[in-house]
Amino acid sequence: MSEGAPASDVRPGAAAAGTAIASPRVSLATGEEVVPTVTSDLVDGIENAIESGDEAAARSAAAALHAADLADLLLRLRPESRPALVRILGDGLDPDVFGYLDEDVRDALVAQIGPTATAKLVAELDSDDAVYVVEDLDAEQKRRVLEALPLGDRALIEQGLAFKEESAGRLMQRELVAVREFWTVGETIDYMRASADLPDDFYNIFVVDGQWRPIGVVPLSRLMRTRRPVTVADIMFRDVRTVSVDTDQEEVAFLFRRYGLVEVPVVEAKGRLVGVVTFDDLVEVVEEKASEDALHLAGVEADAPARDVLRTAASRFTWLFVNLATAILASAVIALFEETIERTVALAVLMPIVASMGGNAGTQTLAVAVRALATRQVLGGEGWRLIAKETMVGTLNGASFALVCGAVAWAWTGSVAIGSIMGMALVANLVVAGLAGAAIPLALERAGVDPAIASGVFLTTVTDVVGFFAFLALATLLLL
Amino acid sequence: MSEGAPASDVRPGAAAAGTAIASPRVSLATGEEVVPTVTSDLVDGIENAIESGDEAAARSAAAALHAADLADLLLRLRPESRPALVRILGDGLDPDVFGYLDEDVRDALVAQIGPTATAKLVAELDSDDAVYVVEDLDAEQKRRVLEALPLGDRALIEQGLAFKEESAGRLMQRELVAVREFWTVGETIDYMRASADLPDDFYNIFVVDGQWRPIGVVPLSRLMRTRRPVTVADIMFRDVRTVSVDTDQEEVAFLFRRYGLVEVPVVEAKGRLVGVVTFDDLVEVVEEKASEDALHLAGVEADAPARDVLRTAASRFTWLFVNLATAILASAVIALFEETIERTVALAVLMPIVASMGGNAGTQTLAVAVRALATRQVLGGEGWRLIAKETMVGTLNGASFALVCGAVAWAWTGSVAIGSIMGMALVANLVVAGLAGAAIPLALERAGVDPAIASGVFLTTVTDVVGFFAFLALATLLLL
Repeated sequence: MSEGAPASDVRPGAAAAGTAIASPRVSLATGEEVVPTVTSDLVDGIENAIESGDEAAARSAAAALHAADLADLLLRLRPESRPALVRILGDGLDPDVFGYLDEDVRDALVAQIGPTATAKLVAELDSDDAVYVVEDLDAEQKRRVLEALPLGDRALIEQGLAFKEESAGRLMQRELVAVREFWTVGETIDYMRASADLPDDFYNIFVVDGQWRPIGVVPLSRLMRTRRPVTVADIMFRDVRTVSVDTDQEEVAFLFRRYGLVEVPVVEAKGRLVGVVTFDDLVEVVEEKASEDALHLAGVEADAPARDVLRTAASRFTWLFVNLATAILASAVIALFEETIERTVALAVLMPIVASMGGNAGTQTLAVAVRALATRQVLGGEGWRLIAKETMVGTLNGASFALVCGAVAWAWTGSVAIGSIMGMALVANLVVAGLAGAAIPLALERAGVDPAIASGVFLTTVTDVVGFFAFLALATLLLL
Repeated sequence: MSEGAPASDVRPGAAAAGTAIASPRVSLATGEEVVPTVTSDLVDGIENAIESGDEAAARSAAAALHAADLADLLLRLRPESRPALVRILGDGLDPDVFGYLDEDVRDALVAQIGPTATAKLVAELDSDDAVYVVEDLDAEQKRRVLEALPLGDRALIEQGLAFKEESAGRLMQRELVAVREFWTVGETIDYMRASADLPDDFYNIFVVDGQWRPIGVVPLSRLMRTRRPVTVADIMFRDVRTVSVDTDQEEVAFLFRRYGLVEVPVVEAKGRLVGVVTFDDLVEVVEEKASEDALHLAGVEADAPARDVLRTAASRFTWLFVNLATAILASAVIALFEETIERTVALAVLMPIVASMGGNAGTQTLAVAVRALATRQVLGGEGWRLIAKETMVGTLNGASFALVCGAVAWAWTGSVAIGSIMGMALVANLVVAGLAGAAIPLALERAGVDPAIASGVFLTTVTDVVGFFAFLALATLLLL
């Protein structure tokens, strides 16, 4: 990739001078809130400028934005206004914006500017960002953009695409600084001063042997503080944490998080250094995983704010359909006891309480288990400990709520029998909820299924069926 | 703080030579899985060594671990074995382990080794880690540890503690490298080589004016590649993204994530540079927030694997109690229609389906809205757009499931009327679910309440009440 200006913490001083639009500013803290750069005022201002044909104002306001903010601006604009702004920006469009865009918005952008212009922008990115952009294009767009790329860039991107999705090979950038162990600090610094083809940002120098295998690492802050004649071998850390090109990105994220790493070198099968994954890619992986868990537990596959209503509804339909099947199963259980309910209608009034309490207690356990697995607070072999603990927690809370709910049911219906039935059914359901809430995600994890995505269905099925059955069966036994 | 060995990506070559215990190794990727350093075998090996009195084996295995792994090991040991291992390690205990420990385990450790030894370890940490450790101690322990600290360290930590919790002031480390704009690259490098009191790791040089206000930043990789006579002013980036000491940590995390930052300088009220927040602290904030959202949506406040059964049960009780109140409210709605149910028991069988579908559809919307707010994909002013979209999604899926469920109910009961009632109630409940699922978290956010923590109760109350009421009221109107 050709080398651009360092895409660093800060942008080179390109302040927006005298625009007619609420001036986009570098985020500054005022008291507690960081003022977002892309305010509703900025969005409205640009919408108005586009509508009224004031292209100069729209261009200068948008061109002054960081790529991340420009991507956010495009997302917030009305879909009709996006192509207009992209056209107005023309060659001034920051290539980095591609890396920040939603897939839907990006596809539309690529379709608009065409493969040649896209290829020109992609060629300016670091290799990891270039792969990130190209991998999600549809097959036809991908082929055209690749064809329009310079050969060298194309080869690097095709190599990146050859690694499997969500692997370290996909995430890594190829640009890195590697030296031999017998180099001096002075030679290393001179090499970096002379070389034009370094990554935009880097934090470590990697030390390799004759076969290009990593044997050490020197943080820049350490190199910086060492006198020129010292050899690299004398200051390098020898235990290098590496990952392979095939390592799953969540495994890589685990290493970063656990050890507070800023970069992890990536090696191929023979141990040769081929790239480096940097922390900023991993922050996204970590957050996406946690967000996904929250969404999956709620029965949402993924969600993009830019997605239209019809596709959003369709994406949620499947899960609701599965839920319907389990709800019908629960209703079938109730149907077994129609006769009991007909005689004592109060049972129909009270039975949702048992199911609801079980569902909620089980969901608590489920969320805890899913996050403990995701953050590796619980390893596979220790699952029995979690199950035991959660079952005991369920038993304790089951006993507490048996007393509370039993009393409520007694007071409400005036029947000691119904109060007792309520209490017994609650204990049973909360014990099962704790057991199932811990065991289901552990079993799914062991079976190689993401525990967040399917646990909820199984769990509510269990707590609904057990809740209704325990309550109504006990009532049938004791009341009839 | 005194300066230790760089706590960098890698540990200086302290390999564990010839221990009797499954040798802890630096994590290496084998194919796809990163082998966790702290395996069940290692835990068992150390448990056995402690039990059999083989202190040398336990010491050498544990001492070779990275602080993060040692913390993990302590967590995984049986609670009885923890003090034994700490005693065996003695002065060899890595101070950094404090920063990685669960609060419960850390409190026990501090109680065991006493305030003087704790103070000695804390004095070796960077100021942000020191504050992180001291802030969570109970009042008595905190007083004693502070008293045992050297005056300079104590002052720094007390200043850190004076900032409010979860603020940039709490997170920042005071150690940083700042120079004036007229320094040359050569002078800057010489200064760093000569200075003993630099942070363990750093990635940027901050440029300040005469009042110590940040006016620029130079990434080390840029400094490194510039010739010695060039002045810092010529290579610095002038737009510095700063936060104030009072900025909330989630706002800081937003900046880091949005712009892929590695460090953010922190300024006090007059704009003077007082510290720097680094990316590794923020990865934790980002992940904790997303994890918290997943847990809060499931009705769990927070959870520590080391917490005992009784305290875990107690921590979940409150939420279950709130859920009970809402379940009783829903039952009260059902009770209004006892007479209707008595005449047509099939209604009791079918009514949970309506409530369940509404609850699930609403939860989908809720999770999406909560994450969109947390990641700022939706800003306050744009809430109406989210509400409109989700209400339409609810309408679409409501219509689809009205057909499906209406048909099921008709087939099951043989009554067209009950099928129609089912369909109408479902549409009503899914529309309300979409509306409430989006509106509730937005309203809570506006009111300054964490939308993840309280949304669930309100939502299921709404969908249960609306679900049961719509279904039974329609039945009362149409069947009687």
